[in-house]
Amino acid sequence: MSSIKKVVLAYSGGLDTSAIVPWLKENYGCEVVAFVADVGQGAEELEGVEAKAIASGASQCYVVDLKDEMVSDYIYPTLKTGSIYEGTYLLGTSMARPIIAKAQVEIARKVGADALSHGCTGKGNDQVRFESCFAALAPDLKVIAPWREWDLSSRESLLDYLAERNIPCSASATKIYSRDANAWHISHEGGELEDPWCQPSEQVWTWTNSPEQAPNDAEYVTLNVQAGEVVAVNGEQLKPYDCLVKLNEIAAPHGVGRVDIVENRLVGMKSRGCYETPGGTVIMAALQAIDELVLDKASRKWKEVLGAEFSHLVYDGRWFTPLKDSILAGAEALSSVATGEVVLKLYKGQVTAVQKKSPNSLYSEDFATFGEDDVYDQSHAEGFIRLFSLSSRISALAKQ
Amino acid sequence: MSSIKKVVLAYSGGLDTSAIVPWLKENYGCEVVAFVADVGQGAEELEGVEAKAIASGASQCYVVDLKDEMVSDYIYPTLKTGSIYEGTYLLGTSMARPIIAKAQVEIARKVGADALSHGCTGKGNDQVRFESCFAALAPDLKVIAPWREWDLSSRESLLDYLAERNIPCSASATKIYSRDANAWHISHEGGELEDPWCQPSEQVWTWTNSPEQAPNDAEYVTLNVQAGEVVAVNGEQLKPYDCLVKLNEIAAPHGVGRVDIVENRLVGMKSRGCYETPGGTVIMAALQAIDELVLDKASRKWKEVLGAEFSHLVYDGRWFTPLKDSILAGAEALSSVATGEVVLKLYKGQVTAVQKKSPNSLYSEDFATFGEDDVYDQSHAEGFIRLFSLSSRISALAKQ
Amino acid sequence: MSSIKKVVLAYSGGLDTSAIVPWLKENYGCEVVAFVADVGQGAEELEGVEAKAIASGASQCYVVDLKDEMVSDYIYPTLKTGSIYEGTYLLGTSMARPIIAKAQVEIARKVGADALSHGCTGKGNDQVRFESCFAALAPDLKVIAPWREWDLSSRESLLDYLAERNIPCSASATKIYSRDANAWHISHEGGELEDPWCQPSEQVWTWTNSPEQAPNDAEYVTLNVQAGEVVAVNGEQLKPYDCLVKLNEIAAPHGVGRVDIVENRLVGMKSRGCYETPGGTVIMAALQAIDELVLDKASRKWKEVLGAEFSHLVYDGRWFTPLKDSILAGAEALSSVATGEVVLKLYKGQVTAVQKKSPNSLYSEDFATFGEDDVYDQSHAEGFIRLFSLSSRISALAKQ
Amino acid sequence: MSSIKKVVLAYSGGLDTSAIVPWLKENYGCEVVAFVADVGQGAEELEGVEAKAIASGASQCYVVDLKDEMVSDYIYPTLKTGSIYEGTYLLGTSMARPIIAKAQVEIARKVGADALSHGCTGKGNDQVRFESCFAALAPDLKVIAPWREWDLSSRESLLDYLAERNIPCSASATKIYSRDANAWHISHEGGELEDPWCQPSEQVWTWTNSPEQAPNDAEYVTLNVQAGEVVAVNGEQLKPYDCLVKLNEIAAPHGVGRVDIVENRLVGMKSRGCYETPGGTVIMAALQAIDELVLDKASRKWKEVLGAEFSHLVYDGRWFTPLKDSILAGAEALSSVATGEVVLKLYKGQVTAVQKKSPNSLYSEDFATFGEDDVYDQSHAEGFIRLFSLSSRISALAKQ
Repeated sequence: MSSIKKVVLAYSGGLDTSAIVPWLKENYGCEVVAFVADVGQGAEELEGVEAKAIASGASQCYVVDLKDEMVSDYIYPTLKTGSIYEGTYLLGTSMARPIIAKAQVEIARKVGADALSHGCTGKGNDQVRFESCFAALAPDLKVIAPWREWDLSSRESLLDYLAERNIPCSASATKIYSRDANAWHISHEGGELEDPWCQPSEQVWTWTNSPEQAPNDAEYVTLNVQAGEVVAVNGEQLKPYDCLVKLNEIAAPHGVGRVDIVENRLVGMKSRGCYETPGGTVIMAALQAIDELVLDKASRKWKEVLGAEFSHLVYDGRWFTPLKDSILAGAEALSSVATGEVVLKLYKGQVTAVQKKSPNSLYSEDFATFGEDDVYDQSHAEGFIRLFSLSSRISALAKQ
Repeated sequence: MSSIKKVVLAYSGGLDTSAIVPWLKENYGCEVVAFVADVGQGAEELEGVEAKAIASGASQCYVVDLKDEMVSDYIYPTLKTGSIYEGTYLLGTSMARPIIAKAQVEIARKVGADALSHGCTGKGNDQVRFESCFAALAPDLKVIAPWREWDLSSRESLLDYLAERNIPCSASATKIYSRDANAWHISHEGGELEDPWCQPSEQVWTWTNSPEQAPNDAEYVTLNVQAGEVVAVNGEQLKPYDCLVKLNEIAAPHGVGRVDIVENRLVGMKSRGCYETPGGTVIMAALQAIDELVLDKASRKWKEVLGAEFSHLVYDGRWFTPLKDSILAGAEALSSVATGEVVLKLYKGQVTAVQKKSPNSLYSEDFATFGEDDVYDQSHAEGFIRLFSLSSRISALAKQ
Repeated sequence: MSSIKKVVLAYSGGLDTSAIVPWLKENYGCEVVAFVADVGQGAEELEGVEAKAIASGASQCYVVDLKDEMVSDYIYPTLKTGSIYEGTYLLGTSMARPIIAKAQVEIARKVGADALSHGCTGKGNDQVRFESCFAALAPDLKVIAPWREWDLSSRESLLDYLAERNIPCSASATKIYSRDANAWHISHEGGELEDPWCQPSEQVWTWTNSPEQAPNDAEYVTLNVQAGEVVAVNGEQLKPYDCLVKLNEIAAPHGVGRVDIVENRLVGMKSRGCYETPGGTVIMAALQAIDELVLDKASRKWKEVLGAEFSHLVYDGRWFTPLKDSILAGAEALSSVATGEVVLKLYKGQVTAVQKKSPNSLYSEDFATFGEDDVYDQSHAEGFIRLFSLSSRISALAKQ
Repeated sequence: MSSIKKVVLAYSGGLDTSAIVPWLKENYGCEVVAFVADVGQGAEELEGVEAKAIASGASQCYVVDLKDEMVSDYIYPTLKTGSIYEGTYLLGTSMARPIIAKAQVEIARKVGADALSHGCTGKGNDQVRFESCFAALAPDLKVIAPWREWDLSSRESLLDYLAERNIPCSASATKIYSRDANAWHISHEGGELEDPWCQPSEQVWTWTNSPEQAPNDAEYVTLNVQAGEVVAVNGEQLKPYDCLVKLNEIAAPHGVGRVDIVENRLVGMKSRGCYETPGGTVIMAALQAIDELVLDKASRKWKEVLGAEFSHLVYDGRWFTPLKDSILAGAEALSSVATGEVVLKLYKGQVTAVQKKSPNSLYSEDFATFGEDDVYDQSHAEGFIRLFSLSSRISALAKQ
C-alpha cells in the first residue's frame, strides 16, 4: 500500500465509517481527519458525531453545514433542467454527492491531507460519484475505498472489529434497511425490497404517512416561483433550503413523494429502492405547472432533451465536468421566464397543481377574443397545414 | 369554390357536423356521405346516429367500428415508445385521429368521393392531424374545412341554421365544455377551464370519481405484459381493446387518470385541457414497471429519446410518415423483452406498481450472492471509476 | 387591403425590389422607405443603390452596415454550436436573415412605419425567416409580401411593369441563376441546377476557382482560436469580419468551400443549391480541430446534439426565440476552453487541419509516460470493462 | 491465476500475438488455439499465418474468412445509420471488432475452450470492444488480456522473449507506426503522429496516394444504391464486399479518404490517428446524396440522432446490445426508400457527388410547374408563417 500521511474521511458516525477510522490508521499508518457533511440528514444523526469520531481515533472532526449551499447550488439548478432519472427517481442521493466531495476536498486542502476516503460499498453508485468528483477537484490526492479493500464483509465483523479495539458504537447487529437522507429525500434499500415482487411494508417508510394514513381533507399550498426557483411558500419568502424544509413538513403527512423503483445503477447492475421526497415532489409539480404556461412548444421539447441528459449526468456523479456547465447554462436560459404562482392540492399521496398563473404566460384567456387580423386568422390554418404536410403530399403523389 | 361532386364527412351526430351536412350541400352543390368512426366514444353518442345523418341530408351514413384496430395498431404501438406529450398528456385524442382519417379515406374510395370534410375548428390541432393524414393517404382528394370557411360562429347561429332547414337537433343552445371521447380517454375544454387560475369543478369530470369520492379501500389489479403489450387483466387473457375497457372500469371509480394541463398546441397557441385516462394510466404504470426490470441503462435512456420524439409526432398528426415507421421500429425492438407481470394498487386517484416480475429481468435478488469472480468483483469498481473519470483527472491535472 | 401609411422595404436594388417600390405605393397608397442591408454582399451590389431606390419611388433609402455585427453576433455564435444543416449546408443565407430583419425593424421604428415588406418569393425559406423575426420583434407591424400577392410572375412582366412607369433598371430579361451573397457565402439556384442529375457547370460558381483551376501548390494558413472564435489569421489579429474576408481571399483561389446539395426547405419541398463558403469552410475545419483537442467524449457528443438542433433553428429562422438563447448558452459554455492554434492546408478544393495545439488540450504526448499509479494503470482497464459490460453479461447469463 | 485448460487467442501473426502464444502456455499451463480473422487485411498479413501460429506453439490454427459477413452484416447496417464518430472517424476498426469476437467465440465453442485471449493493449479501445462482445456472447468464458498482465513492455523485450524460446519471428526491433487494416480502412498511430502539432509524413499513409500524387484528371464513378446499400459500381452488380474492394481500388489512387484526427477513446484519454478509407468515403458520399433526395426534413433530422448515438455505440463496442437492435431497426426503416443512382467525381483527395437521382425522390424538377391549387399555393405560405411564428408573436405581444 502506498504511503499516506493524513487522510480525510467522509464520516457519518455510523457503523461503517466508525470502523474505517481505526482501519485506516492500522493499515495505512496515517492520521485520520473526520469530515461530517451536514446536508440536512437530521439532528439525530449529527448529535455527538464529533465525540464519536474522536473516540474512534480521528485526530480531528470537522462538521460542515452544507444545507443552504446544497439546495441553492446543486438542487435548485438541477430542478431547472427538469431532470428525473429513468422517469421516476428525483436524484436525492445523487445531488448531494458533489457538494460533499467538494467540501471534503476543501478540508483536505486545509489540513494538508494527501488522501481522501469514504465508506461507500464497492457495488454502488456513490463510490463512482465521490471519486469522479475527487478526480476533477483533487487529482493529486489518493483515494482509499476501504470497502473495496478490506475483508470485513458483515455488520457482525465490523462490530467485532470495533469491540476488539474498545471503540464504542451504538449500532445494532441487525439492520434491515440501508437508508440515506438529506434535506431533499430519504432512500431505502435492502430487506424485503430486494425482491421486486414484494410490496414494501410500512416500516420501510420513515418520513411520510401512507396515503391511507394521510388526512381525509386535502391541503392546499401556494408556491411562488421566480426564474425557475421556488422563493415563497404560502406567501412567506424563504431561502431555498427553508422552502424545502417547509414543504417537507407540509407534504409528508399527506403521503406525497413516495416512489418505489428498480433502477439501473451506473455500475451495470439494477437495484430496487424506495424514496421519499415529499417537498421535492411538490416543487417539481409547481415547476412543471409554470413551464406549462411559459415555455413554447420547441422550448418545452428541448427542455426534455436537457433533462434526459442531465438526469444521467447527475446520477453518474459527473457534476464537475464541462457538460454540466453546458446543460445548466441552457437550462438557466429557459428558466429565465419561469416565474409565477401555483396552488397545489395535497391529498392522500398525490400532489396536483390546481391553479397556476405567470406574468410571462403564453396562454391568454383573452386570446380567443383577439381580433382575427391581429393575431390569428383561422384561414391561416389552411396554409399552415398545406405546408406542414407538404412532404407527405409530395411523397404520396409520387407514389400514385 | 372548386367543383366537388361527392364529399365524405367525418360525422359525429353533434351540432357542428349536423349543420355541416346541409352547408356542404348548399355551398358546394355536392352529395354528402356521412362517416361515423366508432372509436369507443360510447353507445350514447352512436345511438341513432345514422338516422340523424340522413335527417340532416346525408345520402348515406357509414358507421365503422374501429375500436379494436385503434387500440391494437395505434395505441399499443405508441405505448411501446413511452410517449407522454409535454410530460403529462397521454395523447388520447391524438392517437385516434390517424385511424379515423384512414377509415374516412377508405370510405371515400369506396363511394368514389372527390373530397373529404371534417368539423374541426380552425384554431385546434385536429384539423392539422386530419388533413396531414389526408395529405399522406389521399393527396388527390379535396379537403373542406367548414369552420375555416363559414360565418356560423356560435352555437346559436348553428341552431338557427338547422332550424331554418327543419333539421332536427337535440343539441342545447348552451354547452359549457367541449369534450372528446374514445376508448382511451375523454378530454374537456372550455368553461371555467379557460382560466388556468381556476380549479376545475367536479362537473368537468365525467368518467372518474374524484379522489375524495373514491373508495376508502385500495384495489389491486394484476396485468400481464407480453413484448410491451398488456395481454391479460387479473389473469384473464383479453384482446387489447378489451383490456382497456376492463381497466377503465376498474380504475375510474378510484379516480385514477385525471390530468389538468396547459399544453402547447401545434398551431402555436396554448390551451388548457382536462383529461381522464383511467385505464391508460394503469397501463402506462405497468409498462414503466416492466421496463424498470428489463431495460439496461443505455436502452432506457434511448427509450426516452424515442418517446420524446414520438410524443410530438403523434400530437402533431404526423402518423403516416417515414419517421413514424422508424421510431416505431426502434421501439418494437426495445419492447421485445418487455414481458412480465405487475400488480398495481389503485387508491384515491393514484396508481402504484407494487409488485413486478419478468422472465427477462436484469435484476436478480440472487445476484448479490454470485461468486465475486463470476460476475462482479468489487475491486473492478476501482478500475471502472479511474477510467470513467479519467478525462476529468487529465483536465484537472492540466490545470494544476 | 388594410390601411398602411408607411412601409419599410428590404431593398436590394435588383429587379424584384425595384418593382416592389412602385407596386406598394400603387396598391397600398403608402410611403415606401427603402432599407438596404450591407452584409458583405459586395460593393458592386451596393453601388448607387440609394439613387436607384429613390428613382424607383422610395421616399428615403437607408443603407445600414451590418457586416461586423453579422459576423460577430450571428455567425460566430452559430459556429460555436457546430451547426451544419443536413450534414452539408453551412447556413450562409440563414444566418444573415435575423440581423437584416432586426435592422429593418429598427429603421421602421425610427421612421414611424406601420408595415414591413420584403421581396422573398412564396416558395422559399426566406419569407418564413424574415416574417418569423418580424413576429418576434415587431408583432404590431403589418407584413406585406408582394410575391404572394401580385400577379407579376416573370422577369419579363417585372421589366414591363418598370418600363411602363419609366423606372430605370439595368436588369436583363434573362437571368439563369438566382444568387444570394453575404460575407460568409454565395448561393446559387436555378438553371441547370434544377435537375439534380445535372452536374453544375463552371459558370455556376462565382467566388472560387474550380479544384482543377486551383494552384498546383498547397498553401498553408494559420488560425488562432480563442474561446471558439477565430481571432487571428496568419498571426495577424483581426476582428471577426476581417478574419472572414481575409480567409475568403486566401481560400477561394484554392477552390475550397464548394457544396452542391439537395436540401429540405422549411416549407416542405426540396430544392437544389450550390454554395461557396471558402473562408467559412476553413474556419469550420479549424474549430473542429480545436474541439478534437479540448472536448471530452461526453462534451463532444453533446455538442453534436446542440449543433443538430441549432442548425434547424437557424435554417428555420427561429433566431429570436428562447430556444436560441438556451442552445447558445450551452454552446458558449462548451466553447470556453476552445482556444488554440491550427495550421490548415489548402489544396485543390480541400482544406485539411495538419497541425493543432491548445493550452487546454486533453491530449498529451507526455501522457503515455505518466507513471502508471499517477494517472492510468493498465490493470484499471479490466475493472472498467467488467462494469462497462456488466449488463450485457447479466443479460447473457440470464439467457443461458 | 485461475485454472484454464484451453484458450482461443485472436492471433494476427504479428510480434505481440506470437509472444502471447508461449506466454499463455507458460503462465496458464493451457493449450492455445490460434484464431485468425480474415477481415480483408490483405494477403500479405495472412500468408503463412497458420505455420507461424504452430511454430509459436499453438495446437491448432483456424483462419476464418469473415470478409463478406463483415461488410454485409456490420458495415452496411452501420452505414444506414450515417454514423461518423466525432464528426470525422468512419469507424473502420470499431466495426470489425464485433464480428471477430463473435467468430472467436464460435471457435471456442467448437474446440471446447474455457477461455478467450487477445493481444490488445491496456490503454486502447479494442480491449473494451472485444471483451464487451465476449461478455454478451460468452459470459461463461474467462478472458485473458496478456498486455494487462505481463511485464513485457517493449518490442525488444518481446523479441528477446521469442528468441529465448527459439520461436522464429520476422518482426523488426523498430516499428514506427501501429497499423490496423481491414477491408474498410487502415489506421495509423504512433511515431510523429503522437504530436498533433506534427503534420503526418507521407510514409504514414500506405493505401492512398497523396492528393498531390493523384492523377491530374478527375475520375467519375457511378454507384447504384438499393434500400441504403450500394449494390453496383459502374453498372456492375457486386456483393457488398466486392463493391468495397472495387471502390478502394478506384478511390485510393485519387487520394480519397484520408483523415487525420485526435479522438476521444472510450477509456478516457485522447489519441491521434490517421485513417485511410478510400472506398468507404465514396460510399458515404453516395449515401448522403441519396438521402438528400429521399428523406424529408424530419426524417433527415432524426437520422442525425440515430447516427450520433450509433457512432458511439459502435466505437464503444456495444454491438451485441438491445440498443444496437433498436437503432438499427430505426435506420433500416428510414433506408427503405434510399434507392437511386449517384455519379461521384474523384479528384485530388476529394469525392463529390455530382449527379444523383432516385425513384423515391421527393425533389421534382416538374414540381415548380405543378398547378398551384394542386400542390402548393403561394398564399399558403402566409398562413404557414403566421402559425409557425405564432408563439413568438404572442410572446412579443405579451411584452409590449
